[in-house]
Amino acid sequence: MSDNRFIQLCSAGIAQLKPYLPGKPISELERELGISGSIKLASNENSLGASPRVAEAIGALMSEIARYPDGSGFELSQALVAKHDCDPACITLGNGSNDVLDMIARVFLGPGCESLFSQYAFAVYPISSQAVGAELVIAPAKDYGHDLQAMRERLSERTRVVWIANPNNPTGTWLKRGELKSFIADLPEQVIVVVDEAYIEYVDQPDYPDASLWLDEFPNLIVTRTFSKAYGLASLRVGYALSHPDLAGLLNRVRQPFNVNAMAQAGALAALGDQAFIRRSVESNRQGMTQLTAGFQRLGLKYIPSVGNFVTLRLDRPAAEIDQALLREGCITRPVANYGLPEHLRVSVGLAEENSRFLDALEEVLKR
Amino acid sequence: MSDNRFIQLCSAGIAQLKPYLPGKPISELERELGISGSIKLASNENSLGASPRVAEAIGALMSEIARYPDGSGFELSQALVAKHDCDPACITLGNGSNDVLDMIARVFLGPGCESLFSQYAFAVYPISSQAVGAELVIAPAKDYGHDLQAMRERLSERTRVVWIANPNNPTGTWLKRGELKSFIADLPEQVIVVVDEAYIEYVDQPDYPDASLWLDEFPNLIVTRTFSKAYGLASLRVGYALSHPDLAGLLNRVRQPFNVNAMAQAGALAALGDQAFIRRSVESNRQGMTQLTAGFQRLGLKYIPSVGNFVTLRLDRPAAEIDQALLREGCITRPVANYGLPEHLRVSVGLAEENSRFLDALEEVLKR
Repeated sequence: MSDNRFIQLCSAGIAQLKPYLPGKPISELERELGISGSIKLASNENSLGASPRVAEAIGALMSEIARYPDGSGFELSQALVAKHDCDPACITLGNGSNDVLDMIARVFLGPGCESLFSQYAFAVYPISSQAVGAELVIAPAKDYGHDLQAMRERLSERTRVVWIANPNNPTGTWLKRGELKSFIADLPEQVIVVVDEAYIEYVDQPDYPDASLWLDEFPNLIVTRTFSKAYGLASLRVGYALSHPDLAGLLNRVRQPFNVNAMAQAGALAALGDQAFIRRSVESNRQGMTQLTAGFQRLGLKYIPSVGNFVTLRLDRPAAEIDQALLREGCITRPVANYGLPEHLRVSVGLAEENSRFLDALEEVLKR
Repeated sequence: MSDNRFIQLCSAGIAQLKPYLPGKPISELERELGISGSIKLASNENSLGASPRVAEAIGALMSEIARYPDGSGFELSQALVAKHDCDPACITLGNGSNDVLDMIARVFLGPGCESLFSQYAFAVYPISSQAVGAELVIAPAKDYGHDLQAMRERLSERTRVVWIANPNNPTGTWLKRGELKSFIADLPEQVIVVVDEAYIEYVDQPDYPDASLWLDEFPNLIVTRTFSKAYGLASLRVGYALSHPDLAGLLNRVRQPFNVNAMAQAGALAALGDQAFIRRSVESNRQGMTQLTAGFQRLGLKYIPSVGNFVTLRLDRPAAEIDQALLREGCITRPVANYGLPEHLRVSVGLAEENSRFLDALEEVLKR
């Protein structure tokens, strides 16, 4: 029982949500552990940083700090229209893709609705669904990835939203064009399907589908993208959804008009203009992934093959201990017990020297 | 009837919300009208801009653009703890105070609940309340301001949230210490009362209350503040709520962990440290308000006396026409027909030269 004296005033969904526990920033963590110069391979950020054009674009806004952002995100939307060859009415801008995912839950889910996703799915799907009182339906995974047959079997008359990350975080698994497209094609129109493509830029597989190309075929499809990963703008919070204008029209009703701040809009616009930076980032990630997985093989460690900018180790022992030991060696990684994977550890692909340092620390820690 | 093919999938509240119509940025507007160099007195921004320390703080983050913000807002929260002499557990950080107001509606309102506010209240109260399906109860205003007796009479067993902006936007009216405090003291504990103090820094009245000083007395009180007005950070989106930790604990459950971006956190922290800038802003506003109201008197115009950084004219003719004519003269102001005031025009206090230019344009336009 909660001893929060106001808990009876909120909905059952919110009452059961785990209260947010603010984590400490790295600087605080380092101060407490008495260490410094840690490497952060915990949040699937772009280890190359961001395009230099982004800082320039932000710098140019310094005289306009006191002015409200453009509530329509006019220039950024125009650039996305050009990128995706779509109508501006298809776009919903978000304060990170988290914001867009949350809007989807608020508009389409509620008590009596079912929200369907896979075991090991991204944590925001259950949190946003639960906050609006929807029932969570979780399909078991197959080899850590989506089992579309198992998901099909869990569809019901009450299923309102199906969430699929492709590739999936935290497992790095992915679905092929044919299987994903037939899954979507079989859904009734009143079931909204969200394909979360946060890591799409990193995927280099001929059978991997860009679901945004299917928007004309499936009016119940919402594709989400983010600037927090390959574009390297995690600090700024920009993501967006692409969908049929009728869906976008409903999402934009709950969008806060100034949800994407002015620095974020300008930064995303500048980042879109530097595709050479994206190519360098993808190549750096390819090399880093090869380095990390070669290291894991050398150390005899199991891992889930990943097409993202991260890879998840299977340690076969409590990952929390390893995580704590790595922390003391100055390596911040991500234990994924909250995803039901208490013996796995997710590591973001870093720069060559960061990957080496992590592999050395891991070898050292596992020897103990 | 809506022809949105998905409208039956969303709640009645959202179905009835007016779809968001993206406005055009000033640059687009100027291009269409064939004008340039407009002055913007439309959004109650700080005409002095922001403290120079803010741009410095943002500049120092340029190498960290690819890193996620601190989800706990640790340093900013610590500074707010020092400012308000409160526990960190009392704070809820928002992507602007709009975000905090929206969280309050999501946590405490829903179908079957009543949301009570005054005629001419800030537009976000009804929008956020309606989005979650609450019933809107609107108490008539008295002399454009809050009529607390009328609000009292509209309390019911189903009243869950009462919203009071002090001072009020768009009217600039304000409530005195004694009347506001007894209103709050008379509320049953299960009625949450929100006192929105977005414009508090500008108020220079001995009887004006800082409701944040009453938090220990009233566990059902939430006070909201913003960095978008006197602090001059509208582009960055930072606001916050102060409340009993039990209320903050519930609000933080629906807060997106990275809702305040890294530039915004750093900017707000820097802005808090420059109180001399706030004093200069308040003094500039005082002089500008005197200049504007003297001008209105000279022109024989009626206006609602305001304690904010804006003042609302009563034109006794459709304000939309005057607004359009002013636009062609390069003055952007805010018609407030959406607040039920079709013959009023809200003007933000600008710099001396902006106020002069606006007064000249207004005189010219009214002569026609």
